[in-house]
Amino acid sequence: MTRKKMNNTIEDVIKDIQPINYELMENAQGILDDLTKPKGSLGRLEDFAKKIVGISGVLHPEFHRKVIFVMAGDHGVIEEDVSAYPQEVTLQMVHNFVQGGAGINVLAKHVGAEVIVVDMGIAGNFSPKMNIINKKIHFGTKNIAKGPAMNREEAESSIIAGIEILREENQKNKIDIIGLGEMGICNTTVSSAIVACLTKTDVEKVTGFGTGISNKQIRKKIYTIRKALNVNKPNPNDGIDVLSKIGGFEIGGLVGCILAAASLQIPIVIDGFISSASALVAGTITPKVYDYLFSSHNSVEKGHEIALNHLKKTPMFDLQMRLGEGTGAVLGINLIEAGIKILNQMSTFSQAKIKRKE
Amino acid sequence: MTRKKMNNTIEDVIKDIQPINYELMENAQGILDDLTKPKGSLGRLEDFAKKIVGISGVLHPEFHRKVIFVMAGDHGVIEEDVSAYPQEVTLQMVHNFVQGGAGINVLAKHVGAEVIVVDMGIAGNFSPKMNIINKKIHFGTKNIAKGPAMNREEAESSIIAGIEILREENQKNKIDIIGLGEMGICNTTVSSAIVACLTKTDVEKVTGFGTGISNKQIRKKIYTIRKALNVNKPNPNDGIDVLSKIGGFEIGGLVGCILAAASLQIPIVIDGFISSASALVAGTITPKVYDYLFSSHNSVEKGHEIALNHLKKTPMFDLQMRLGEGTGAVLGINLIEAGIKILNQMSTFSQAKIKRKE
Repeated sequence: MTRKKMNNTIEDVIKDIQPINYELMENAQGILDDLTKPKGSLGRLEDFAKKIVGISGVLHPEFHRKVIFVMAGDHGVIEEDVSAYPQEVTLQMVHNFVQGGAGINVLAKHVGAEVIVVDMGIAGNFSPKMNIINKKIHFGTKNIAKGPAMNREEAESSIIAGIEILREENQKNKIDIIGLGEMGICNTTVSSAIVACLTKTDVEKVTGFGTGISNKQIRKKIYTIRKALNVNKPNPNDGIDVLSKIGGFEIGGLVGCILAAASLQIPIVIDGFISSASALVAGTITPKVYDYLFSSHNSVEKGHEIALNHLKKTPMFDLQMRLGEGTGAVLGINLIEAGIKILNQMSTFSQAKIKRKE
Repeated sequence: MTRKKMNNTIEDVIKDIQPINYELMENAQGILDDLTKPKGSLGRLEDFAKKIVGISGVLHPEFHRKVIFVMAGDHGVIEEDVSAYPQEVTLQMVHNFVQGGAGINVLAKHVGAEVIVVDMGIAGNFSPKMNIINKKIHFGTKNIAKGPAMNREEAESSIIAGIEILREENQKNKIDIIGLGEMGICNTTVSSAIVACLTKTDVEKVTGFGTGISNKQIRKKIYTIRKALNVNKPNPNDGIDVLSKIGGFEIGGLVGCILAAASLQIPIVIDGFISSASALVAGTITPKVYDYLFSSHNSVEKGHEIALNHLKKTPMFDLQMRLGEGTGAVLGINLIEAGIKILNQMSTFSQAKIKRKE
């Protein structure tokens, strides 16, 4: 299959993504096995530490800067009555993020992470004084039930915006791990369409209640997603085609974050359904990103499990969450950090003068 | 069924355990539903917050002091060759706890919790200068394959020791939540016997590899547990009988902690298999403790799931851990704390001027 030419910036980032360092991971395993505990008894905490070593290329990595990128955008498919909330809630919630009152703010503070809020395409304006990165492509996407969400150039622009933000922030102050957050009324509709397309799964199996729609609305939502796929015929082998035809801008921004983070050896923690859809798009553009991804929680949203299976990721926990914003990712970052502290701070058998297994 | 007379201290603690405050939990639910998120979208984090409100009797509880009690003791059943490690490892690991090099120290520091180490019956002595609470009942229990682990008075003494420690620590400085930790070579053997007895389950179904014994040793372990149950015939309706006949001292200490914490409205977080066995003993003594208990993780140890089902507790996560020491409990405390911060710190819809669901 011939691959469509991509924008040079995106091509360059893809070229920069290196395989993770398996040799250093073996060294980390040696250290983990010498710590004062039965071998492997801290289970996945040890796996997390080892993978961070492989990604970062550092034998004793530390998380000095943890960042949740919350990308926001609106969706023209709101016209089809597929959401429980009106469109202006995207803008209002972004105000809430900036003022520190949302779920993600509270949880990020709990684990010592920063929240960086990005307008990728909200259908409204902010005061320029507000602490929001402005990368607005448009005031929302077009209605995917009637045609493409955006054109190919706009899809590439949204990815490049994500790349730029990640790079700029990392240049200001080195980032050690990122979590993917998002806000956008109707973005479970869009994500269901993406997951159905990329995992070749029936729409009904990957369409859930989002923020809490009615049984009547879910029929409408499924119908709309089927229509969007029929009208646009996105090519499941071309991530940018899928992004441009189904959307949205915040998903493009997250795809850019994933690509740029992987190219800079920064681990990436997926949140719920929307960020998993973004990871599927990024993985379609280049499967090299998979080794850089961690999944955090299994969300309530129907279809999340299918997306995670396709990404070959096992979630760390299931607390019946379905808020998005990066709220699961940030708790996942905290568990990964627990793992690297085990690697860095526990005593070895010889240090502690403890008898080994007989 | 007639109930055996118990020591007055224990009887008094049981009398002091009050039902949790359901009315205040309803108030907390009202607050949670007014926060800027779809109702219930933070799932079990919201449930944790509500339950802490009910237990503490405070509408906006905060965790200023989080304590992991690591109770240690040795077991006479070591004679039967049922462990991968020699007995002196209990003493050596307790030194490691005090020096801060063990898994529990690293994870407790990660979440801002204290570790309090207690000698309930280790087969060895410490320097009195070491920061260990000395409640030693004996230098290890007797071999349960041959007779009872201890007599009834000693079982009660171990529970009272746990009660005293919890009360004294709480008097020094109010405790907001506790995690149950333990160390004791052979204590998975003892816990399997307890869980088999109290859940009326076949021994084989609740006997696992502990710290990592061989397939040959596990046959020996199952045989030994069956023998211990046959020789001692513990009464599954009498928790103190079970504790005295099968042991051990650290389990008695944890039972005391559970009873005293519940009587002081302090929430209790279970760790893995051994602390779940302790919770089953406490629940047999008085089912009033169940409402005060949280389970944290599902451990690898076979039988843990059966114990949790019997306790009617759903674990928060499964990271394939099997270390004990309170390492799962301390991560659970951190998730519960995330829940209470959501309750205390998020903005409401009216504060943030956000439209509600249509």
